[in-house]
Amino acid sequence: MASNRKVSVDEIRQHASPESCWIVVDGKVWDMTEFAPDHPGGAETILEHAGRDATEPYSAVHPPSLLPKNLPPNKFIGVLDTTTVDTEWTKPPPKATPELTLNQEKPPLQTIINANDFETVASKTFGAKTWAFYSSAATDCITRDANRSTFDRIWFRPRVLVNVDRADTRSRIMGNDVSMPLFVSPAALAGMAHPEGEKALARACKRNGMIQAVSTNASFPIDEIADAAPGHPFIFQLYVDRKRENSAKLLKMVEGLGVVKAVMFTVDAPVIGKREADERVRADLSVSSPMSKSKASEDKKGGGVGRTMGSYIDPTSTWETIAWLKKTTKLPIIVKGVQCAEDAKLCVKYGCQGIFVSNHGGRELDTAPAAIMVLLELQKNCPEVFEKLEVFVDGGIRRGTDILKCLCLGATAVGIGRSFLYSLNYGEDGVEHLIDILKDELETAMKLVGITDLSQVHPGLVNTLDVDHLIPTTVGHPYARWRPRARI
Amino acid sequence: MASNRKVSVDEIRQHASPESCWIVVDGKVWDMTEFAPDHPGGAETILEHAGRDATEPYSAVHPPSLLPKNLPPNKFIGVLDTTTVDTEWTKPPPKATPELTLNQEKPPLQTIINANDFETVASKTFGAKTWAFYSSAATDCITRDANRSTFDRIWFRPRVLVNVDRADTRSRIMGNDVSMPLFVSPAALAGMAHPEGEKALARACKRNGMIQAVSTNASFPIDEIADAAPGHPFIFQLYVDRKRENSAKLLKMVEGLGVVKAVMFTVDAPVIGKREADERVRADLSVSSPMSKSKASEDKKGGGVGRTMGSYIDPTSTWETIAWLKKTTKLPIIVKGVQCAEDAKLCVKYGCQGIFVSNHGGRELDTAPAAIMVLLELQKNCPEVFEKLEVFVDGGIRRGTDILKCLCLGATAVGIGRSFLYSLNYGEDGVEHLIDILKDELETAMKLVGITDLSQVHPGLVNTLDVDHLIPTTVGHPYARWRPRARI
Amino acid sequence: MASNRKVSVDEIRQHASPESCWIVVDGKVWDMTEFAPDHPGGAETILEHAGRDATEPYSAVHPPSLLPKNLPPNKFIGVLDTTTVDTEWTKPPPKATPELTLNQEKPPLQTIINANDFETVASKTFGAKTWAFYSSAATDCITRDANRSTFDRIWFRPRVLVNVDRADTRSRIMGNDVSMPLFVSPAALAGMAHPEGEKALARACKRNGMIQAVSTNASFPIDEIADAAPGHPFIFQLYVDRKRENSAKLLKMVEGLGVVKAVMFTVDAPVIGKREADERVRADLSVSSPMSKSKASEDKKGGGVGRTMGSYIDPTSTWETIAWLKKTTKLPIIVKGVQCAEDAKLCVKYGCQGIFVSNHGGRELDTAPAAIMVLLELQKNCPEVFEKLEVFVDGGIRRGTDILKCLCLGATAVGIGRSFLYSLNYGEDGVEHLIDILKDELETAMKLVGITDLSQVHPGLVNTLDVDHLIPTTVGHPYARWRPRARI
Amino acid sequence: MASNRKVSVDEIRQHASPESCWIVVDGKVWDMTEFAPDHPGGAETILEHAGRDATEPYSAVHPPSLLPKNLPPNKFIGVLDTTTVDTEWTKPPPKATPELTLNQEKPPLQTIINANDFETVASKTFGAKTWAFYSSAATDCITRDANRSTFDRIWFRPRVLVNVDRADTRSRIMGNDVSMPLFVSPAALAGMAHPEGEKALARACKRNGMIQAVSTNASFPIDEIADAAPGHPFIFQLYVDRKRENSAKLLKMVEGLGVVKAVMFTVDAPVIGKREADERVRADLSVSSPMSKSKASEDKKGGGVGRTMGSYIDPTSTWETIAWLKKTTKLPIIVKGVQCAEDAKLCVKYGCQGIFVSNHGGRELDTAPAAIMVLLELQKNCPEVFEKLEVFVDGGIRRGTDILKCLCLGATAVGIGRSFLYSLNYGEDGVEHLIDILKDELETAMKLVGITDLSQVHPGLVNTLDVDHLIPTTVGHPYARWRPRARI
Repeated sequence: MASNRKVSVDEIRQHASPESCWIVVDGKVWDMTEFAPDHPGGAETILEHAGRDATEPYSAVHPPSLLPKNLPPNKFIGVLDTTTVDTEWTKPPPKATPELTLNQEKPPLQTIINANDFETVASKTFGAKTWAFYSSAATDCITRDANRSTFDRIWFRPRVLVNVDRADTRSRIMGNDVSMPLFVSPAALAGMAHPEGEKALARACKRNGMIQAVSTNASFPIDEIADAAPGHPFIFQLYVDRKRENSAKLLKMVEGLGVVKAVMFTVDAPVIGKREADERVRADLSVSSPMSKSKASEDKKGGGVGRTMGSYIDPTSTWETIAWLKKTTKLPIIVKGVQCAEDAKLCVKYGCQGIFVSNHGGRELDTAPAAIMVLLELQKNCPEVFEKLEVFVDGGIRRGTDILKCLCLGATAVGIGRSFLYSLNYGEDGVEHLIDILKDELETAMKLVGITDLSQVHPGLVNTLDVDHLIPTTVGHPYARWRPRARI
Repeated sequence: MASNRKVSVDEIRQHASPESCWIVVDGKVWDMTEFAPDHPGGAETILEHAGRDATEPYSAVHPPSLLPKNLPPNKFIGVLDTTTVDTEWTKPPPKATPELTLNQEKPPLQTIINANDFETVASKTFGAKTWAFYSSAATDCITRDANRSTFDRIWFRPRVLVNVDRADTRSRIMGNDVSMPLFVSPAALAGMAHPEGEKALARACKRNGMIQAVSTNASFPIDEIADAAPGHPFIFQLYVDRKRENSAKLLKMVEGLGVVKAVMFTVDAPVIGKREADERVRADLSVSSPMSKSKASEDKKGGGVGRTMGSYIDPTSTWETIAWLKKTTKLPIIVKGVQCAEDAKLCVKYGCQGIFVSNHGGRELDTAPAAIMVLLELQKNCPEVFEKLEVFVDGGIRRGTDILKCLCLGATAVGIGRSFLYSLNYGEDGVEHLIDILKDELETAMKLVGITDLSQVHPGLVNTLDVDHLIPTTVGHPYARWRPRARI
Repeated sequence: MASNRKVSVDEIRQHASPESCWIVVDGKVWDMTEFAPDHPGGAETILEHAGRDATEPYSAVHPPSLLPKNLPPNKFIGVLDTTTVDTEWTKPPPKATPELTLNQEKPPLQTIINANDFETVASKTFGAKTWAFYSSAATDCITRDANRSTFDRIWFRPRVLVNVDRADTRSRIMGNDVSMPLFVSPAALAGMAHPEGEKALARACKRNGMIQAVSTNASFPIDEIADAAPGHPFIFQLYVDRKRENSAKLLKMVEGLGVVKAVMFTVDAPVIGKREADERVRADLSVSSPMSKSKASEDKKGGGVGRTMGSYIDPTSTWETIAWLKKTTKLPIIVKGVQCAEDAKLCVKYGCQGIFVSNHGGRELDTAPAAIMVLLELQKNCPEVFEKLEVFVDGGIRRGTDILKCLCLGATAVGIGRSFLYSLNYGEDGVEHLIDILKDELETAMKLVGITDLSQVHPGLVNTLDVDHLIPTTVGHPYARWRPRARI
Repeated sequence: MASNRKVSVDEIRQHASPESCWIVVDGKVWDMTEFAPDHPGGAETILEHAGRDATEPYSAVHPPSLLPKNLPPNKFIGVLDTTTVDTEWTKPPPKATPELTLNQEKPPLQTIINANDFETVASKTFGAKTWAFYSSAATDCITRDANRSTFDRIWFRPRVLVNVDRADTRSRIMGNDVSMPLFVSPAALAGMAHPEGEKALARACKRNGMIQAVSTNASFPIDEIADAAPGHPFIFQLYVDRKRENSAKLLKMVEGLGVVKAVMFTVDAPVIGKREADERVRADLSVSSPMSKSKASEDKKGGGVGRTMGSYIDPTSTWETIAWLKKTTKLPIIVKGVQCAEDAKLCVKYGCQGIFVSNHGGRELDTAPAAIMVLLELQKNCPEVFEKLEVFVDGGIRRGTDILKCLCLGATAVGIGRSFLYSLNYGEDGVEHLIDILKDELETAMKLVGITDLSQVHPGLVNTLDVDHLIPTTVGHPYARWRPRARI
């Protein structure tokens, strides 16, 4: 390291690539080419200064003595010939803008680092109709927002000094191996977000070992979606049609595909909730449509995609409909939309294979309980259902920590709807990016709470005391003297 | 569908009406005239593209294969003659603005889709005095706001798989059939909102099977209001006059009309609350009036419409006044303004036929309990009153879900005051539109909570645990050693 | 009323005063001179239209038939001669601005209608130093704000159908008759708000039958203040001086005045709290003073008026100091600054005559409990003190409802500090205006809660359930195994 | 004082220094030179008016009679010769700006009066990367913010009439005398805030009798840091390296220094949390680096300083690692990162000397419990640990009151991390200024709560009822029927 060789800035500039990377620190020139890939801080933080003076960023994180101590002497090239310094040399490298610029176009996918980013981008770049339909929820959106915020009132009880070198997120859903206990919740009209819609979701799911639940209201028929991910398992979400024969025919087709492993029978939307953001867009369109055969009653009601798409759904379904379903298909039945312990018990009684705790993303009845609260209600009032069938939940899940909390409280797996639609903004790549993010978040949460595989989840890992007092019991009632009265 | 006929844009433009509706999708021309009325998404969404290219909106929600599969071959007209495309053709249909523009004038009625919209429009378009008088409440408006927000702390416990094809909102109020258990709460001076004032309310109520409670402070005499809805039942709200003979004369007249079915005796306003927004407008008017014989004490107090209108009200009324009332009129008596269980019991003792839980919209005593909290207090401390007489409630009700919660907790019917005044901004049409909205919201809420008529309401359908601990008991007290002391 | 006389606008304009007041409604001219004083809506609302067309404001609140029915025929002057209408006639009367304009100067006193208005005006018009000193509180101002906000978590339980024609606010404080149980809390340096400072307060208090507690740190000596309200009773607030003889001499002088009825011995400020807004102004002044003999340690600490004024206060006082006090003066002793039940009991034990629950307006220890919470703590843990001595409270009281809540929970009287300083912005007139406002608010609150004199206050009139669980017990402790440890 | 001598403004202006200070009040000229240093309001408030007219500021706080009464007659110089008054004389002294101006550069250190000021200044003046790395926390920052806000839900129960002339903050940490029970929490890369980094912290700590905990990730090697404060005790924070021999070598070196008194073994970061603000800066830098050998998986994850610096940390450590540690070093072991009672008990079992309750400033697992909540959990579920070893806590401490609350709840001492990094913005002077502020705040809090040394702290001095119900028990569980299930 006694080299006195003077090195000019022009020579240094020749070594500005991964193949030959020189940097200058404190007037000394070093060859970082071999060391860069091993840099604990990542190769990039060195390479962005290749062929340049890196004194300032280096000093911010390292003591001066580090370079000479850690590099072999032959990596020392010489000292900077300060007589060769020109104006260009003293300029800093081009700065990146540190925040997303969302006003006009989608930011690069790699700047998106969580599910909320996808939502923010969607809110700025989706068409007004698509955004309204996806993001809207019933009336004042209290349930939609509680779905999310209730997770932040449930705290972890992290354990330390556990070997967490690896965290294994693998699990099973209705007998199918999955890479993590997260599935794509059934949602209508993915085609509004991307031309490939549910097909893009299917491809991304297959590549990542995830299961997709396909909606009856998908933008593509399920056979086309299944073709996009040949041989991969699916779940089919069913709205029973007012004309039962239509549903029977559909189920027959679905079962015939061979890849559908269960039917999610949606029962939380016998009538479509009042999603005002969605209705408002329709209301305005109708105003601009001079030819519409407007019926006053319909005009007054507004008219969202959700409501108009749902007019075929049979509101007369009862628990007996499950018997009909079981006659019609051999696929296991998951009842989607359970919102109280009483109905969870009925799922067992009527021989279903799964319970899907869901309030339809808050899109049906406003002030219905947050999904995670219903999961707690089941734990409190009918814990036996968790032993008898699989329990799923969706609503407000945006983080790996949210997923882990649901699992700790007994969920077999959790669903995410809107975030996947928002990720479709970037097509298949977006969906895979979201899956990567959530898997990484789940693994990190597992390690930091002190577990390494999902057989170790347990309610003792979370503290639900902030909400426990809000969970109803199903025996007795504070206003027990109530007696029903004839009204008319 | 093998037609190769080239169709020009001019020809297509001829078919731009419900009577003959062609659209172009992916360069193919289809006759949608017969199909449009059966379109699951509604006829309008097709008709707004009549005579135009609908490829983009169609693709957003449908797979490409759907049209050929679902339409008979003869509906295929031919292929678009692209040589005829002109600039006009490529323009999108005129867009509606997706949000209300409130700055200068009232938006079209059909863009209003809930009670809050009416309030927003009123705040922008009413005169300052009218808005101040209607919207104001006592001092810091804590009770007014709690009336509203407490509903959002009461959650539903929805049941699923109930046949909810129809929901029947019919009920009875004081023996009268009503289309839903909602009435127009008595409120002063509807004429400030619309020249037809209470008369417009009466007409809309009659047409929709609703009952209106007419205030002693109405803008019109009750006989004129009753004439606007001949034969329709009414309730009369009474402030007892300091000069009892005035009230006696008034009651005689009211009873003589034959259509008034009950008297609401208001007891929550023996003195008028301090409604500061209202006082401020008066204070300023007096400043600008150089001729006013200003009395300092009055000037210092400010002076709202509410207070000055209320100077005749008798503050000496007691429970014995009810005996006088019963002697004076044969109409059933509803005591309006009950705010604790003790007084609810006294209503039974003194032989009233109804209890109206009300804090006068938060306009009297600030930090009086939210109305729904008093309803809960009655359920907790004197549930027997619900069996003995009819219980009404108003304060903060803006949604069908709010109505249903009150019914589940024992209310016979609920009142809405301000929202109806705000709807009068559009006259009778506005009132009817509001009724339609609330009825639709109530029906939707009933179906989604899993009931089909109002005899099925029950406290078990709601979860009040978030507020139950705030309900006082009437026996014992946390500070029981208290002893009254002489002060002077 | 059959008069056909045509009346010109010029003639009408002659009758634009209280002495002769004509108005035009629907083209008819009426003489309102005699009726105006009896108008239920107040004379002003008629007089502001004297000599003008009042059709629009009249129609907003009255049916058309009212005027002819209520006025004697001879008050009908004739019909408007529409040929005489000119441009001036059609203009509306000059509008008053409906909101305070605070940017540059104080708005007229009569537009101020509550204590918060005084604070808003003070924040805009006081000098920076005065505002900082008065409004500031310790560090993060949590206690100052909790003093206020906790009142909003305590609800009334209003009773109805009580004869509330009159509400009598008279009470007694330490044996002295007062017009209401509210006194001016001792506060330093009223002279910063107005040149007449405490003297103006004294005059206003005397005129309204109120008691003022004069601070040791007043802007004037107490003899000068007492001279401003000859013969009127006062309370003297005492900070014990590090040099006891100074305090002894002061007490002797005070007692000699003959009008001081009690000594408030302040114990909540043995050292002055860190009032950062106050410190910041000092810190900056010192920066601009090049001559200051700056000591680094003092500079670093900042330096508010409060701290520098308080350097003489003796921090070595103990309960034994009360024995010394009782030897030094025969005046009754009120201990100001009690913040827990244990110390309240010691006040009884050491023979004091009064307890003043106070946290010094949140200016001393941040996160000390809100004053009303300490009052509740006393009710819970040592209710006997309320029978043995008088209990006062200040902190956050801004409304008549706040006063009433304190009385219901056992307070003999309540103090207000800052609001009176803010009212001094308008001198004596401002103070009297504030007293009028608070008395009116207290009377209204009494009537609406259903009481007519202050012997009827009772904890059963308030619901404290929202905060009861936050009140500590003084026996046992959740962390009972605690044992003190030697530290050094 | 009968002097009639006329004094000109020019003469007065000569006496504008501490050495000779004249002021004018009400036209009279006084020599304040001798009195100024004794002024209860501080010398500065007089000196800033030296050689000027002080009538206005004097009158704001003093009665007119005060000066003649308090000054000896010979200090009266004469009366202002008003004929000599010029324009300059009537101008007010130059005003200081009352608020920090943060837009471009650091405000003077003496205008910073609390820890939050340092944070505000840092947010405006640090480089984006430094600010992101220091301020960021895991995902939604819920734990970071709860660390802080939970302190505001814990209230004091102040005692009065205690002799609090002095408050002694001295204590001991692991057998070492300290001037107060506050230490510098270990934090990485202080060099990013200031070139002297941890060395500046060391010097300031030594001068103030405080202990610094040095991070394995410090910007300087610990031997260089120790050299900056010769002979002063330190604590060394250890991340165990995946290569154990590296850690062994490091510990040997550390122990050899002779000044390190304990090892803080960090166990709350076996994997680095997802600190999104930090990741975003990295993500953007990589975008601007055209030469980076970007690996998709790494790019997608983003990349903060925290994560990349932490790649060497061993995630396989278990409680057995403590046995290895004890074999490797004779220094006492403090386990940093304990977050539940179960693990606190294991610290006792495995023979550690200290427990450090910490969630890494909220930077690891979001919705981990606030640090002070874990301290309460230990008090509730394993109070015996406080008798057996020393308990430390960090997270959200910004005020002297926060420190005192921790001590009352059993902490031996508390750590602060970020605030010290922010204070480094001003180098050593900044650190000392922060220490002065916190010591002063702690002393003030002690006096106002009624204690004089730290052996008197006790849980009875705080009221934790607002959070007590959120503290989990470790026996039994609300969802006790839980049974782990095989997943795969």
